[in-house]
Amino acid sequence: SPGHAKAEIKQGVRELSICRDANGKMGLKVKSVNKGIFVSCVWANSPAALAGLRFGDQIVQIDGQNVAGFSSDKALSTLQKAPGPQIKLIVRDRPFERTIILSKDSTNHLGFTFKKGKITNIVVDSSAARNGLLIEHNFVEVNGQNVVGMKDDDVLKIMRDGGDKVVLTIMPTMFFEVMVKNLTDYQLSKHMDHSI
Amino acid sequence: SPGHAKAEIKQGVRELSICRDANGKMGLKVKSVNKGIFVSCVWANSPAALAGLRFGDQIVQIDGQNVAGFSSDKALSTLQKAPGPQIKLIVRDRPFERTIILSKDSTNHLGFTFKKGKITNIVVDSSAARNGLLIEHNFVEVNGQNVVGMKDDDVLKIMRDGGDKVVLTIMPTMFFEVMVKNLTDYQLSKHMDHSI
Repeated sequence: SPGHAKAEIKQGVRELSICRDANGKMGLKVKSVNKGIFVSCVWANSPAALAGLRFGDQIVQIDGQNVAGFSSDKALSTLQKAPGPQIKLIVRDRPFERTIILSKDSTNHLGFTFKKGKITNIVVDSSAARNGLLIEHNFVEVNGQNVVGMKDDDVLKIMRDGGDKVVLTIMPTMFFEVMVKNLTDYQLSKHMDHSI
Repeated sequence: SPGHAKAEIKQGVRELSICRDANGKMGLKVKSVNKGIFVSCVWANSPAALAGLRFGDQIVQIDGQNVAGFSSDKALSTLQKAPGPQIKLIVRDRPFERTIILSKDSTNHLGFTFKKGKITNIVVDSSAARNGLLIEHNFVEVNGQNVVGMKDDDVLKIMRDGGDKVVLTIMPTMFFEVMVKNLTDYQLSKHMDHSI
């Protein structure tokens, strides 16, 4: 399905262009983690969303300038100060994330419990157990759709409404919590790009 | 090159068989992390090494039994008590690891410093910076060859002796340190399978 294809994490780096909107905005937030710069929020319908940027992407270059070692603020101001309506980025696809494909059992379950997007337990002899899902990880995407900041019930609905196989994109909780640390619930739930 | 092909982390799970040696041993150690069971050491020339098991692999099933939630000890005794000379495992390929390909610059450098296998700094405008290498990560493999427990000088030699492109397989230090916690330096440096 298109969702499963979108979920796949590509190796290597890619180049993309972001155009500013009428207000000069691009619609993303960034966060410095381990000397790298990561996308921590993508506004729905923003230039960043249209350019294909996603939560967890690593920005390695802004208009030809390497950003390794930059603080979050320095990376943000580099983005803001970049001249011209179009900014070129070199991006690595979601380095802290990986995908796991689970299959629904006869009772329509995948075999794990979660709370506020964090996996809390693995059910014995479930699809989650057979496929090696781990606790201390957070969902980032379900079938390629971003679910960061969504209510658990809404995430569950997406899992239920999908087909027999569900692709989960997960990130270790330690990295996830650093990434969303300074974002408000409002930013995450109302502004984040949750489109399919 | 064969090393680059070996470095690639495969999606999904695979099945493999391990045969005990004359002493009934398989030659591996396991560690429980986040309710999953991981291979923390593979003895050189052991049945586990011959079967293709590697440091960081996640064992999800032993002879048809799911091991999610097992302690390290329970997983080990399950392996030891498995009947027959041949044990079937279902394994997920190194979930905590990812690969980054770096290119040597004109002075033969890749652009980072490391200490005891842990990446400590990224050099400005280097291949490491352009490709998004991060600190707080440990090397696990160089060109597909395990380097866990090797002296830094020996790891550097492997990087230098390889071609212009070097594939690094890295793991967040947080997971790496949990994995090797109860292993002695002797076990890591003398017994670990460092073969190409």
